[in-house]
This record gives sequence, structure tokens and C-alpha cells, in this order.
Amino acid sequence: MISKSQIKYVQSLHAKKFRVLNNAFIVEGAKSVLELLESNFIIETLFVTADFYKENKKILDKQNPVVEVSITELEQISTFLSNKAALAVVKTKENTELLVDSTALVLVLDNIRDPGNLGTIIRVADWYGIKKIICSEETVEFYNPKVINATMGSFLRVQMYYTNLVSYFSKNKLGYIAGAVMDGANVHQLKLPKAGCLVIGNESNGISDEVMEFLTEKITIAKRGGAESLNAGIATAILLDNFFRNE
Amino acid sequence: MISKSQIKYVQSLHAKKFRVLNNAFIVEGAKSVLELLESNFIIETLFVTADFYKENKKILDKQNPVVEVSITELEQISTFLSNKAALAVVKTKENTELLVDSTALVLVLDNIRDPGNLGTIIRVADWYGIKKIICSEETVEFYNPKVINATMGSFLRVQMYYTNLVSYFSKNKLGYIAGAVMDGANVHQLKLPKAGCLVIGNESNGISDEVMEFLTEKITIAKRGGAESLNAGIATAILLDNFFRNE
Repeated sequence: MISKSQIKYVQSLHAKKFRVLNNAFIVEGAKSVLELLESNFIIETLFVTADFYKENKKILDKQNPVVEVSITELEQISTFLSNKAALAVVKTKENTELLVDSTALVLVLDNIRDPGNLGTIIRVADWYGIKKIICSEETVEFYNPKVINATMGSFLRVQMYYTNLVSYFSKNKLGYIAGAVMDGANVHQLKLPKAGCLVIGNESNGISDEVMEFLTEKITIAKRGGAESLNAGIATAILLDNFFRNE
Repeated sequence: MISKSQIKYVQSLHAKKFRVLNNAFIVEGAKSVLELLESNFIIETLFVTADFYKENKKILDKQNPVVEVSITELEQISTFLSNKAALAVVKTKENTELLVDSTALVLVLDNIRDPGNLGTIIRVADWYGIKKIICSEETVEFYNPKVINATMGSFLRVQMYYTNLVSYFSKNKLGYIAGAVMDGANVHQLKLPKAGCLVIGNESNGISDEVMEFLTEKITIAKRGGAESLNAGIATAILLDNFFRNE
């Protein structure tokens, strides 16, 4: 049974203002919640249906507190139209500075605005084993439920750091910084390094002028047909695939 | 000024049943409508706002019939929350058999169900210059407004043919048929031909057993990290990019 104040609290976390105020966000659906339980995120409260509880009793009995709710109650606090399983209220993590590892590829997002795109980018980054994503301060908030849901669980495996990219690039000596642009070198013809940064720009305006100055390589996905552009998530996927094509 | 019966008619085209009944579909927004005017699609009626009309008078004066509507009226018949420009009612094309060209790569979709995914796939196909897409009969309808909108205009440049894939593959002698699977050869290590078919399967279940029998090559996007899967649109993009990486 869920209390009225709990309903109000969880619903408030659908909005960024209250996520920031309470240092908490929500994780929804069976798959993401089960993966969450194995992560190092701290869970405030777990809301589960009777069926989900029965199916996962062993794991859930270790959790505290677990609140059993009806499907109607769960769907009232969920952003999903249909959620018959679970929702967790989770503590957000500190925005801790991520240092660039000299042996790994790091993704840098310069003002990605669409939550679905950010979620897709995190999922694709996780597929290719990218562990760190550096985001400009204007990039859409990681804890937005649309982002979390679009990652399909990958939000648990990729670390994010929001910062001023100009300060970040100025402070840290990063050897290789590639950026996705419309008129760069054909990615197919480049020998790409195993470590460095790949910068993806804003959906409409691309990489900002200030960040552009730090690029050591400008790369482009060669176009053969008529489409004007590719979606930011698609472009990230194709470029990451090229970075690992010789493994 | 739009009539009540026109409102009812255009709204009815939001549903597949009435698109099939009337052999018509809708194209929404400034960019898609302007590109549509340069295509060989036959327009039944064009609804435009006064501003859009003024900006495009030269082109629109050649069109017949053009109905000027208020933004409120336009948004009433549009599937977009906001549409301040135009909506066209367009004749659907016959589902004409597409023969596989022996010099080009053709995409085959085996039961893609999500309209957003189909739209993304068409856009990506167009980027790589793919001209023909063969779809299983269960694949989501091309004329669905969500598909048309997600293509970002690419629906005008890619031909679609819906058919029974088993009959199609049985009837047509197609040399090379690659399929995207979870446990195939690493796409990075394959020498891929410039002509043939690439089959993409259903979002949840992959390629069906019946279609699997026709594959001459099973290919996989090598995973380096933790994500369980890639979205169908993303997978299509990465695979197509690999087909053209040596151009």
C-alpha cells in the first residue's frame, strides 16, 4: 500500500526540479529494476506489484524498504503507460570529475538536447564498452526518466560527468580529440586510435565553435544517397563502430 | 478555410483502415511538404497556413488545390502537436514488385513493427543510397504518419515493396543474402559484396526461422561492452556502413 505523500513524492521526481532538490530519480520496469539491484546505486524505496514480488522474492527480501502496490498505484507513479512490475526511487550520484583514461576511448557530448537521443547514445556507448561520457552543461539531464528508459539498463554501466567542455579541454591534456562534423575526413579512410575523445555535437547545430577549436581531427560519415543528415544516436553508433573495426 | 468534412477526412487518414480505404496518406511539416512537391507523388489536397503560402507562393501557385487554413485548423488535422506550415493529403502508390538489382545492395525487413524504427531505417538507407526495401507483410505500414515523419523526407527517395519473403526469396534468384543475427560472423572481419540483400529481423525475435533458411551469410556487430542488444535502426546503420567502408 502506497501513501498519498509517497505518490506525490514519486510523481514530483518526474520533474527535474524535484530530482535536483531531492537528489533522487526513478527507475521503471522489471528489467531495469532487476539490473539496478545488482548495481552500486543506493535505492530509497522499491515499489513492486505482488506478481513481481513473488517472481523475485529471493532478491527482493534483501532489499529494504520494499512497498507492495497494485498495478493501478504503480502506473500512477510511473511515467510508463503500462508498468505491471516495479519502480525504484534511487539516489542520484555526485557529479564527480572523470579523468580521461589514456588507454580508452571517451565520448564527449556537446549539447545533446533530446532525452531519447542521450539514452540511445548511452546504450550504444555501453555496447562498445565505452565507460565514460563527458557532457557539456547544456546536455539534457542524465536522470530524466526518458533518458534512463531509453538506455535499456545501460545507465548502470556508463559513468557521466557534466562540465564546461572548454574548461575541461583546457585543463586536461588530451592527445586526440575527434569531432563529428559535416565536412571532415571520411571516417572509412582514417586510421583511428584506440584512445582519445570523440565529440558529438548538438542535433541541429553540431559542435559549438568553442569546442571546435580543440578538435585534432574532424570526421564525417560519407553520404552516398539523399538524406540530409543522420540522427545523433545513429551517427554516434556508426562512428564508434569505426573506432573498433580493426579489433 | 477548411470544411467539416475535410477535417473529418484528413483526421480519418491518421488510421490505417482509412488510408487503405482511400488510397491516401498525409505528409506534415514544411520540410517534408516542400520536398514532396518536387517528387512524383500525386497530391490530393494541400493545406497551408497564410505564412507558409506567402513564403512559398511561387511553388504553391503551381499546385492545385491549395486550401489556406489557420494554424488552429492545421493542428486539428495534423498528428503533430505543433504544425504552423503545411499538410498534404497524398495518393499512396501501388505495391509494385521490386526486382533486386544485381549491382546494388537491397534492404529486406522481416517484421519490423515499430513505426519509429521503420522511419529511421528508411532515413539511414537513403543516406547510404539504398533505393529499394523489401518488407515482410507483417512489417509496419509505410504510410503510417509516424513512419513518414521519422524518415525526415527520405520516404520520397526509397521504394518499398511489401510481400511474403519466403515466396519472394523462392521466386527470385538472389546470390548473396546476409542476415543480422546475434551469433554470426563479426561484420568487421568479413569482405562484404557491393550487391545482394541485407536482412534485418524483428525488434524482439530477430529474423524468422523461415527467412533464416535463405541466408547465405550470418553477420553480427561485435559487442565489446555490457548492453544486451542494439535498436533495429542502429543495427541497420552500423551494418550498412560496413557494406560501404571500402568505397
